[in-house]
Amino acid sequence: MTVYTASVTAPVNIATLKYWGKRDTKLNLPTNSSISVTLSQDDLRTLTSAATAPEFERDTLWLNGEPHSIDNERTQNCLRDLRQLRKEMESKDASLPTLSQWKLHIVSENNFPTAAGLASSAAGFAALVSAIAKLYQLPQSTSEISRIARKGSGSACRSLFGGYVAWEMGKAEDGHDSMAVQIADSSDWPQMKACVLVVSDIKKDVSSTQGMQLTVATSELFKERIEHVVPKRFEVMRKAIVEKDFATFAKETMMDSNSFHATCLDSFPPIFYMNDTSKRIISWCHTINQFYGETIVAYTFDAGPNAVLYYLAENESKLFAFIYKLFGSVPGWDKKFTTEQLEAFNHQFESSNFTARELDLELQKGVARVILTQVGSGPQETNESLIDAKTGLPKE
Amino acid sequence: MTVYTASVTAPVNIATLKYWGKRDTKLNLPTNSSISVTLSQDDLRTLTSAATAPEFERDTLWLNGEPHSIDNERTQNCLRDLRQLRKEMESKDASLPTLSQWKLHIVSENNFPTAAGLASSAAGFAALVSAIAKLYQLPQSTSEISRIARKGSGSACRSLFGGYVAWEMGKAEDGHDSMAVQIADSSDWPQMKACVLVVSDIKKDVSSTQGMQLTVATSELFKERIEHVVPKRFEVMRKAIVEKDFATFAKETMMDSNSFHATCLDSFPPIFYMNDTSKRIISWCHTINQFYGETIVAYTFDAGPNAVLYYLAENESKLFAFIYKLFGSVPGWDKKFTTEQLEAFNHQFESSNFTARELDLELQKGVARVILTQVGSGPQETNESLIDAKTGLPKE
Repeated sequence: MTVYTASVTAPVNIATLKYWGKRDTKLNLPTNSSISVTLSQDDLRTLTSAATAPEFERDTLWLNGEPHSIDNERTQNCLRDLRQLRKEMESKDASLPTLSQWKLHIVSENNFPTAAGLASSAAGFAALVSAIAKLYQLPQSTSEISRIARKGSGSACRSLFGGYVAWEMGKAEDGHDSMAVQIADSSDWPQMKACVLVVSDIKKDVSSTQGMQLTVATSELFKERIEHVVPKRFEVMRKAIVEKDFATFAKETMMDSNSFHATCLDSFPPIFYMNDTSKRIISWCHTINQFYGETIVAYTFDAGPNAVLYYLAENESKLFAFIYKLFGSVPGWDKKFTTEQLEAFNHQFESSNFTARELDLELQKGVARVILTQVGSGPQETNESLIDAKTGLPKE
Repeated sequence: MTVYTASVTAPVNIATLKYWGKRDTKLNLPTNSSISVTLSQDDLRTLTSAATAPEFERDTLWLNGEPHSIDNERTQNCLRDLRQLRKEMESKDASLPTLSQWKLHIVSENNFPTAAGLASSAAGFAALVSAIAKLYQLPQSTSEISRIARKGSGSACRSLFGGYVAWEMGKAEDGHDSMAVQIADSSDWPQMKACVLVVSDIKKDVSSTQGMQLTVATSELFKERIEHVVPKRFEVMRKAIVEKDFATFAKETMMDSNSFHATCLDSFPPIFYMNDTSKRIISWCHTINQFYGETIVAYTFDAGPNAVLYYLAENESKLFAFIYKLFGSVPGWDKKFTTEQLEAFNHQFESSNFTARELDLELQKGVARVILTQVGSGPQETNESLIDAKTGLPKE
């Protein structure tokens, strides 16, 4: 049996200008354009291997070691589009093997716990679509492939690029112009780092898909957000990224997170993704920026209580003097820093004139772990395969 | 010494369409009209006695048994306006004693703990202005007097009336058309009851005055609220009150509370008045309405975490089956209900098919007491005086 295989890793992305609201739920077409930062795959990535052979009996998916249904509409939409593109190639070149007619085996694994509450569907669909595109040797551009990933999970289209990425909402009814484009590569502004504060209580009451459509249907303030607030912010944030203007990037990122959660609260019944710990983290970030008299950190919250903090490498010790002081006891620090470096954060805090009296000690209890990472690259082909090329089944 | 005295009680009001934002901070002119329900003075009221005599040496204020500065601009504005009206009377009738030229002694007391976190400034300024207007025997209408109370504390103008009250924002720069009017008397819709859930953590980070001006200055969604959302809601809510349409009244009340807190969250830095307990109360109310398949309860939150629930007397046992189940152990119930009545609430819950598994037991911890009350009347003259008519000083 000849098994064709390809393996790809794909990154997580965290929006700094939020996607919230679909104008077409079938095609995952958004009500507004969005912007995100792609995070390093050293810390957070999905590895997906795709295989095909004439002998395979059915399309099959294994996620994190377990068989998983592939029958959902979104995955089917992605497979159909990818097979269609392969079929077009095959019809032009009769020498090509007819991969488009064979069944697929797909095996996928994250290098981070799902329990972290980080949106894994973006990395997941980006890896799935990229792996099959690679398997099929599709000639389409990354933006074109991102349109397919979009049908799997809207924000997945942004994980097709590294660095700083825009998802342009497009106008067409069929969604052909709704895709991701790169604003800047990670190497253009490599100093951007991210610290994820994983909040203990991660139960999510309302899924993103349900939540955003409730907002579209009921929030009286939502129209203002998508018609005026986001289009203006999109241009300001894009310019800030191109010009590496962290203060503007940070302010717009924080304001957009707040604006998005405000429209959730304005939904009926209201949707709450942030909890009291999230709010305390927000206050703490404002306290830190105020203390230094400049904006050195930005917070953003997706549809859950976890905070993602963005900052520049040059301000790391200034920021971590405050962050390590509060969260030094949770896991995640020793992967990135030596004991001496961590001691130095403590020392820097103690030599600041910030009084311990002002520390929000309640906040310590609410955070379970930190994930330290930075801006990173887009999907990468890899030799590490999850599929046994002889059997076409997941490796043990 | 002849001491002239007058005593008045004034009520608390809780907005159902929120006042948030001043277009003139000196005159307390709002950015939007608002609507409130006046609560019964049996449960929540300020009693204020005002006295004047030629022998008094200086304007003096005692609040809840303690001397209190009267030098703040807002109180001074009220006193000046009231003296001006008295002066006009005196200039037309030379036989009147020249009260406008004498100093005032003012003694004021609440019948509820300030720690309850209920906005006492509205009742306070309403009582102060009403007591002096009574002392001066001013002929002006209640709406005209409400303009003066407005300068003390914006929402105080609404406490000049009982029942259901609108504060019309007005357009004039001098604020002469920004005053309270009654939409309906408490006797027109006497079935309205209120249950205040006093939330344990009542520390307020940002005062209303600071908070609302931060929202005006920074929220990108605020303009939409005051230009479109509130004007439309004002008419819908007024009509619902006149027609005693509780379902519409309740829905608009809940949506407006959420809209107001959404613009707080959209401020920069964001302002949070509700905490996790507040959010759980909101969820609980939606659960209750969903359980009964009709809207029997509305929640609203002012600039703090306390919930005020509005409901109709006819639905009391349906509502309290759920509310007493969770909060039966906190103070406030035995003032209004016999042990048998409270047992009946328990029984009603147990005979519902709501499973205990769905109870949000976390919520129990967050509420410190309940205050049970209902729609009530406006300021009332009273023979109960806090001032000794012989000495002109507070009674011991």
